[in-house]
Amino acid sequence: MKTKKVAIVGASGYSGEELVNLLLHHPHADLVAVTSRQNAGQTLAQVFPKFASHPKSKLLRFVEPNAELLAKQADVVFLALPHGVAAEYAIPLINAGCVVIDLSADFRLKSPEIYKEFYAHEHPAPDLLKKSVYGLPEFYRDEIKKSLLIASPGCYPTSILLPLIPLLKAGLIKSSGIIADSLSGVSGAGRKADIDYLFCECNESVRPYGVPKHRHLSEIEEQLSFAAKTKVTIQFTPHLIPVNRGILTTLYLAPENHFSTAEEMAALGAKITACYAKAYAAEPFVRLLEGKALPDTKNVVGTNVCEIAWRLDPRTGRLIVMSAEDNLVKGASGQAVQSLNILCGWPETAGLV
Amino acid sequence: MKTKKVAIVGASGYSGEELVNLLLHHPHADLVAVTSRQNAGQTLAQVFPKFASHPKSKLLRFVEPNAELLAKQADVVFLALPHGVAAEYAIPLINAGCVVIDLSADFRLKSPEIYKEFYAHEHPAPDLLKKSVYGLPEFYRDEIKKSLLIASPGCYPTSILLPLIPLLKAGLIKSSGIIADSLSGVSGAGRKADIDYLFCECNESVRPYGVPKHRHLSEIEEQLSFAAKTKVTIQFTPHLIPVNRGILTTLYLAPENHFSTAEEMAALGAKITACYAKAYAAEPFVRLLEGKALPDTKNVVGTNVCEIAWRLDPRTGRLIVMSAEDNLVKGASGQAVQSLNILCGWPETAGLV
Amino acid sequence: MKTKKVAIVGASGYSGEELVNLLLHHPHADLVAVTSRQNAGQTLAQVFPKFASHPKSKLLRFVEPNAELLAKQADVVFLALPHGVAAEYAIPLINAGCVVIDLSADFRLKSPEIYKEFYAHEHPAPDLLKKSVYGLPEFYRDEIKKSLLIASPGCYPTSILLPLIPLLKAGLIKSSGIIADSLSGVSGAGRKADIDYLFCECNESVRPYGVPKHRHLSEIEEQLSFAAKTKVTIQFTPHLIPVNRGILTTLYLAPENHFSTAEEMAALGAKITACYAKAYAAEPFVRLLEGKALPDTKNVVGTNVCEIAWRLDPRTGRLIVMSAEDNLVKGASGQAVQSLNILCGWPETAGLV
Amino acid sequence: MKTKKVAIVGASGYSGEELVNLLLHHPHADLVAVTSRQNAGQTLAQVFPKFASHPKSKLLRFVEPNAELLAKQADVVFLALPHGVAAEYAIPLINAGCVVIDLSADFRLKSPEIYKEFYAHEHPAPDLLKKSVYGLPEFYRDEIKKSLLIASPGCYPTSILLPLIPLLKAGLIKSSGIIADSLSGVSGAGRKADIDYLFCECNESVRPYGVPKHRHLSEIEEQLSFAAKTKVTIQFTPHLIPVNRGILTTLYLAPENHFSTAEEMAALGAKITACYAKAYAAEPFVRLLEGKALPDTKNVVGTNVCEIAWRLDPRTGRLIVMSAEDNLVKGASGQAVQSLNILCGWPETAGLV
Repeated sequence: MKTKKVAIVGASGYSGEELVNLLLHHPHADLVAVTSRQNAGQTLAQVFPKFASHPKSKLLRFVEPNAELLAKQADVVFLALPHGVAAEYAIPLINAGCVVIDLSADFRLKSPEIYKEFYAHEHPAPDLLKKSVYGLPEFYRDEIKKSLLIASPGCYPTSILLPLIPLLKAGLIKSSGIIADSLSGVSGAGRKADIDYLFCECNESVRPYGVPKHRHLSEIEEQLSFAAKTKVTIQFTPHLIPVNRGILTTLYLAPENHFSTAEEMAALGAKITACYAKAYAAEPFVRLLEGKALPDTKNVVGTNVCEIAWRLDPRTGRLIVMSAEDNLVKGASGQAVQSLNILCGWPETAGLV
Repeated sequence: MKTKKVAIVGASGYSGEELVNLLLHHPHADLVAVTSRQNAGQTLAQVFPKFASHPKSKLLRFVEPNAELLAKQADVVFLALPHGVAAEYAIPLINAGCVVIDLSADFRLKSPEIYKEFYAHEHPAPDLLKKSVYGLPEFYRDEIKKSLLIASPGCYPTSILLPLIPLLKAGLIKSSGIIADSLSGVSGAGRKADIDYLFCECNESVRPYGVPKHRHLSEIEEQLSFAAKTKVTIQFTPHLIPVNRGILTTLYLAPENHFSTAEEMAALGAKITACYAKAYAAEPFVRLLEGKALPDTKNVVGTNVCEIAWRLDPRTGRLIVMSAEDNLVKGASGQAVQSLNILCGWPETAGLV
Repeated sequence: MKTKKVAIVGASGYSGEELVNLLLHHPHADLVAVTSRQNAGQTLAQVFPKFASHPKSKLLRFVEPNAELLAKQADVVFLALPHGVAAEYAIPLINAGCVVIDLSADFRLKSPEIYKEFYAHEHPAPDLLKKSVYGLPEFYRDEIKKSLLIASPGCYPTSILLPLIPLLKAGLIKSSGIIADSLSGVSGAGRKADIDYLFCECNESVRPYGVPKHRHLSEIEEQLSFAAKTKVTIQFTPHLIPVNRGILTTLYLAPENHFSTAEEMAALGAKITACYAKAYAAEPFVRLLEGKALPDTKNVVGTNVCEIAWRLDPRTGRLIVMSAEDNLVKGASGQAVQSLNILCGWPETAGLV
Repeated sequence: MKTKKVAIVGASGYSGEELVNLLLHHPHADLVAVTSRQNAGQTLAQVFPKFASHPKSKLLRFVEPNAELLAKQADVVFLALPHGVAAEYAIPLINAGCVVIDLSADFRLKSPEIYKEFYAHEHPAPDLLKKSVYGLPEFYRDEIKKSLLIASPGCYPTSILLPLIPLLKAGLIKSSGIIADSLSGVSGAGRKADIDYLFCECNESVRPYGVPKHRHLSEIEEQLSFAAKTKVTIQFTPHLIPVNRGILTTLYLAPENHFSTAEEMAALGAKITACYAKAYAAEPFVRLLEGKALPDTKNVVGTNVCEIAWRLDPRTGRLIVMSAEDNLVKGASGQAVQSLNILCGWPETAGLV
């Protein structure tokens, strides 16, 4: 299989580190450059001792990011940069013929108006929004294959969209009144010196934040609206819990059809089972739990898998759907590599577990 | 102030241990007996090294539980026993003239039918259900004063009822469609040898459980129905998170009146503020958060305080209320001591922070 | 008992926060002022939501530190400041007639030369070094009573000195070849925005640091030398472990007399038992473990107790002594309050557990 | 490369689970059977949801262990059983022509007398002790190639032997007076229902145990004695810390030659550097840290790497060596797979990172 040269801009955060990890061990990708302002000049081995046993880790040295140079070195460039900064690099890279896989939120929205509403400034490259594809492989595989700019989804959005899109597309649930309650590990906050994320501030603590209007709502609602073919507004409450990695999302949903008898409940259950099976039975990275099993982040951490389970509650008439993923893998870098695999025509599971 | 003699039946679990802690340091209670099947014969100091510096810890020895004997020794007996076992001890103790403060679920319900539905067997003493009072001091203070059998509320129920009862009583929210999403520390599962609660099974893990019909729903819904004066059925999803102590509950509620303009939102906000202030401004153990503050379990662990904050979401029309408590203190032993204080005519905050 | 007015300079770090906690609940101390550069203007309740239920927390507002003003307000001033900064405030406060209890390392050494060796600059007030007393109550109780400047010991030193001083004074162990291997919770690193102490950098990690010459060696060795009446040089290796609080120290020691038979071992064991009993049987905050019990930080966290246990190893001829303490209580703020109690003639356990 | 069929007896503990993980993803090994008494009848996917995305996980079903049957199915059988139980299975398997890789302590010692001293009963198969090879590839690679019974080293022993053996062989340190202070994650205690290892008993806790004579001393000292060519007795103190995985060992050593000047220290340092480089520069799974880097378990967890760093202390004349490894990988299952790779003539790093 043909090898491709890849580079990472902003490789010193948690997503960047996981991307380095995945690409160092990828069977077909050749990591040729990593950039980082604060670590320029140091080798991968110096910045990340955990990769020091990899032969490349002593050869590969962080450099200052330079789009022109990167475009010469790499076929595909990953951007693992803060929101707002990514766009700066994406534009010259694309102009220079690179394919860009952006892990930031900069190109996830189709609507520059919604971008402005949630990010409080004009989008820096509204034309590129039209060209970008939302890198959720389970729903945009064909578009990813031929895209030059893949906007890899956020961690919360992935954990919410995977369980919801099939149900909305099948018309099994109401598109109004959706509630998503999410719990995230601390790596989601990034590797930045901030007292709020010190060990002693997070350990033995659990807290909601960003209530009621978190920025991720913009891409979640846009994608849900596409699926439902109507404008969807949801309730979303993120919480910070003391684990390094993992997102657990609990969704509260109203089935389109009421069920009151055991037969109606069984019938609806069968439809949900069929809906998810149709959407995901052949998907390598979505695991539909069976029997009494419920999602647990410890079963997905370190993998690109999103676990999904659901229950109908005859007492309330609601459908509860729960998902678990690793926020740095399926919620960030693993999903970006999944897009890379699709893009390059490699097996979609290459370099991923 | 007059001292009372108190005893604890089943003092070797986590709630029992916290009760020992609170009663050893209580200014007016005199802990005279502790019972435990598995630790009979050992001193408090041997079983709980952390109490070994207290003079009583070397004098007080665990004994086999014996209701007749306890009734002679103590004025008030706490039962920190599993559900179903507590009733066995409550009956003879009450007959012998003791006041019983029961931390189990055995006497929390008024309806023996609901008990049977949720606990899958007939209630062992339906007559006592009528005599028992639900030991939530903020709402049953007067009844606690003169009761012989106080059924101290569960940990999840406390975290859900304190935020909800004032809103329902004031008619500010709809009594239908309530959702409670709760996160609990592992001590809630008790000190029992069970692989599911081993360090390596809980650490770096988060998982829902008991979906969709947890037993605590029975007492939550009964109390909410009393407050709303109509039958209330709610959605409740507990999750296990890797902390020792603490419950964080997020409630999704529908205000009785829709709000669409900023003025309507402000007006509704003012009503909610007033409602909570009326209910809790004078309460020593309910803390209404102000400004941007949101509940965080680390701010209540080790205290008898329940923190409450709320937000109106103009995008969805919902009211989000969040609470945090220590499941072993306000959610169990601290609340039981609060009832003891009321019962004995001591300051309600005696021995509690 | 006569109340004293106390103030805290630098109350927003972890030691400062614990000091606020202890002094807010102290039966005889009246906390009248708290200072903090970054939080000036805010109430205690705003900075530390966990204290918000205390009536004083809404009245007490952080101010900029001003020695002159503090000297007028308070009888005793605690300095919870970084090393080097504390001395600046101590001098004017003492000149103004305040008693100062300093939690930093600035006045712990008697020798300005050793200070310079370990802290790399001249001591700012060498005259005050002569007046200061090392605030380890178990050994300097009488000096503390009449001192104007109490240098409260460091967290590692306390965990090492309490087990060692009695043995050295009694001549039971050799003063050479001592090894102290210590494990500390992350709060020991302070509340500062530093990537090294982020949750994800500390959780699921354990690492040594400061090898082989940690600054705390200076005060440890000076105190051990006083006890042994000869210059003592020890090996000390601190490690960072993922707990909020707690220090566990394991000491490797050579008994002065070799033991090879069971009788010799029993005889030596009896001497050690007697030595520790003599030193600590009457001490409220040193707990000598018996039988098979070994120290565990979870049994001392939140208390001012230091647990000690020891074992003779007939295979190696060594004595192993292990201690556990809460680094923020007996290792910092609790010990400082213990000194306050002594100084003010209050019961030594007042406000401490 | 030729595939080999492998089986795991006792695959439901933590080491067994990690072995399943490694063998499911191994490029040349074909996992054909897994046994477990308590899980017999269930598929791998049911017992370990985290492997459910692997195609084999739904085909492979746990069976009752049966040596005769296993011998027919597999070329190599791993025993991940408790001490004492492993020997029962090893004997018939070897008689039936299987190669056995035993992760228990049953065949690690050469001396049945030492076995009896530490395990308190006669060795069940003293003849096999002579045939077994100690599966530490860095020192027994040639013997592993042709062995029928590989006794894979324990977790603590690996973390102690790798840093010590080269120094002892080179005569750089004294063989007497060695101290090993080790910190282990809770998975080292195994997946068994025991109150001591509940989340709430381990979290926010650190404690020594097995002081002063832990069973692992027997194999550590036997191997060190082989290296030093004289009987070696060491001091070893294990501690339990709240992480899932990882062992950090700190070794306190006396260099054979004293060093007092900077030149002597530099000369000794150069010898140590050369000694370790000779031993490990070509080893894929020993990482010699350079510069200021010190071992950190988070850099080795999930890998088969053991990190080593050292410091000379001119104040005490000692050499401090520190190591970090994943107790379940290099300390157990990864090392066993490394032996498998050697045995089968595969690249030693196959299936390992």
